[in-house]
Amino acid sequence: MTNPAPKVDVPTLKDLTIDNITENVNLINAQGSDVRLKYILERLVSHMHDFARETRLSTDEWMAGIEFLTAVGKKCTDVRQEFILLSDTLGLSLLIDSISHPKPPLSTEGTVLGPYHVHDAPNQNAGSTISGDPNGKPLLCLCKIKTTSGDPISDVKIDIWETDSKGSYDVQYEDYSGEKADGRAVLRSDKEGIFWFKAIVPVPYRIPSDGPVGNMLGILGRHPWRPSHMHFMFEKPGFDHLITALYLRGDPYETSDAVFGVKESLLIDLGNVSAEQAQKYGVKEGSSLLTYDFVLVTDEETRKLRDEEARKAMKTLGRENMLIIEGLPVPDVD
Amino acid sequence: MTNPAPKVDVPTLKDLTIDNITENVNLINAQGSDVRLKYILERLVSHMHDFARETRLSTDEWMAGIEFLTAVGKKCTDVRQEFILLSDTLGLSLLIDSISHPKPPLSTEGTVLGPYHVHDAPNQNAGSTISGDPNGKPLLCLCKIKTTSGDPISDVKIDIWETDSKGSYDVQYEDYSGEKADGRAVLRSDKEGIFWFKAIVPVPYRIPSDGPVGNMLGILGRHPWRPSHMHFMFEKPGFDHLITALYLRGDPYETSDAVFGVKESLLIDLGNVSAEQAQKYGVKEGSSLLTYDFVLVTDEETRKLRDEEARKAMKTLGRENMLIIEGLPVPDVD
Repeated sequence: MTNPAPKVDVPTLKDLTIDNITENVNLINAQGSDVRLKYILERLVSHMHDFARETRLSTDEWMAGIEFLTAVGKKCTDVRQEFILLSDTLGLSLLIDSISHPKPPLSTEGTVLGPYHVHDAPNQNAGSTISGDPNGKPLLCLCKIKTTSGDPISDVKIDIWETDSKGSYDVQYEDYSGEKADGRAVLRSDKEGIFWFKAIVPVPYRIPSDGPVGNMLGILGRHPWRPSHMHFMFEKPGFDHLITALYLRGDPYETSDAVFGVKESLLIDLGNVSAEQAQKYGVKEGSSLLTYDFVLVTDEETRKLRDEEARKAMKTLGRENMLIIEGLPVPDVD
Repeated sequence: MTNPAPKVDVPTLKDLTIDNITENVNLINAQGSDVRLKYILERLVSHMHDFARETRLSTDEWMAGIEFLTAVGKKCTDVRQEFILLSDTLGLSLLIDSISHPKPPLSTEGTVLGPYHVHDAPNQNAGSTISGDPNGKPLLCLCKIKTTSGDPISDVKIDIWETDSKGSYDVQYEDYSGEKADGRAVLRSDKEGIFWFKAIVPVPYRIPSDGPVGNMLGILGRHPWRPSHMHFMFEKPGFDHLITALYLRGDPYETSDAVFGVKESLLIDLGNVSAEQAQKYGVKEGSSLLTYDFVLVTDEETRKLRDEEARKAMKTLGRENMLIIEGLPVPDVD
């Protein structure tokens, strides 16, 4: 018999108990050199173990968790991300966005991306009709993009996407292909920061509920609905990437969004197209009107704010002796 | 346009921020009637959100986590459970076993099951040779099963499994089938609580490291080795199911087991077969000898201890107003 085992020089673990195992796992996880990764792992393991200790999680419950996560993994495909859906439905996605993309007062807040953005939506000109659904209620959208000082921002790439009148995104149809894109477009703001287009009034819809996350919502007595909204994504070098959405005030699901996306500042009331607007934009007088001024934040403003908020949060949490490296906290071990 | 949305009567969420989202998610998750599930979810969401707040987890780091979990899910098959491996390598499995199967002093402690137990190992008689590996170092195993009062326990079903001399379990070979079972057996204790068999001296081996969990260990600077051990599982109605293993003292990985399974009480020193034993058991004098007395705990003892420990833990954690229902804590909301 050969003994394949070389002597190893690693932290010494022994006689692990409910009370000392966390410290031991963190010790052995701390051998690498990436200080940020070590901090993330230390917090992850500590929370996971505290969760087990506080619930006295049973072997059967743990196994149910293992089976649930496995089913979530098995449900993921190129066009379906069930772990993101899980993160969305547990409020984690919104939390991460709020932490990673802090917004100063009066700038436009971000919200959840959701799984229906595509990277190759068709480029369209100002005034285009982005929805071909004849059953949708026509909506004229007149928007503007400004800096936090109120100056217009030109040449911003704007991704817009919404469902059809039945509450389905184009990508949810089995015969979807890039050429059949509908309810989505990429526009550019003009030199006054203006972009405008014709769409349909958004409707509520259900998140995909035929998988393990849908089962979870059912067991928890939760509905799978999202309130009526239209998605927007803004990109321009020098500005923080903004992923957001506008929500229709008064929607039945306004205060119970299955993915926790609604924010007060993103709720809008639709207006009606005036006679003058009808003529100017070539739409019917009295039809629905969406107007909104989006305010983008520069990368520099974001970086500064992220740093400040990280410092403030560490203080509030009582986590002293932390360094903030590129906006992300790590323990100062020196 | 039809509006498919009925009015809903659910808790009201609005204007979610970093600071209030957790409370809101817990509120909407608390609509079901299963008090235990609600408590588990409340703790899970709170820890997950606190983890994000304490690390100020970035969008990129979150996405790396989503991709990691997806890869773990994709690696799972009928014969490979990568989520259990993840749980094992983060010390969660050992923790859960310690919580769920508390042991009074002097009883045999449990440890991680690992992924290599099968449900249809061959039944064998006392004295059987369970390993057909000609390169293994012969090991005579003389064991006994007792109650906490020292009385022998007869007719216990004992599952035993170990690797071959190369450190591989039978199921890890591509051509494995039930008929090719090797290094594993099911025995029964006799009326004196005795079971004995011939095996080989265990060797260290690597946990499967060709998947995302192996990558994780690599990134963390951790080795994938488990110290030399032999697995045992004991089942008899009226007694708490015992999953355990015996570890060879002095193994190079004794204090750095990749899955945190080693406990002081499960470390053994092998002896040598005496002339008398050699004759009695039909093995070579001087060959290796394993002797161990396993002490099982009754279901009733376990239930009582689990309750006591849950109560004590809730008190230590400062979680007041908890009811213990079948050994598991839930908040007493009345």
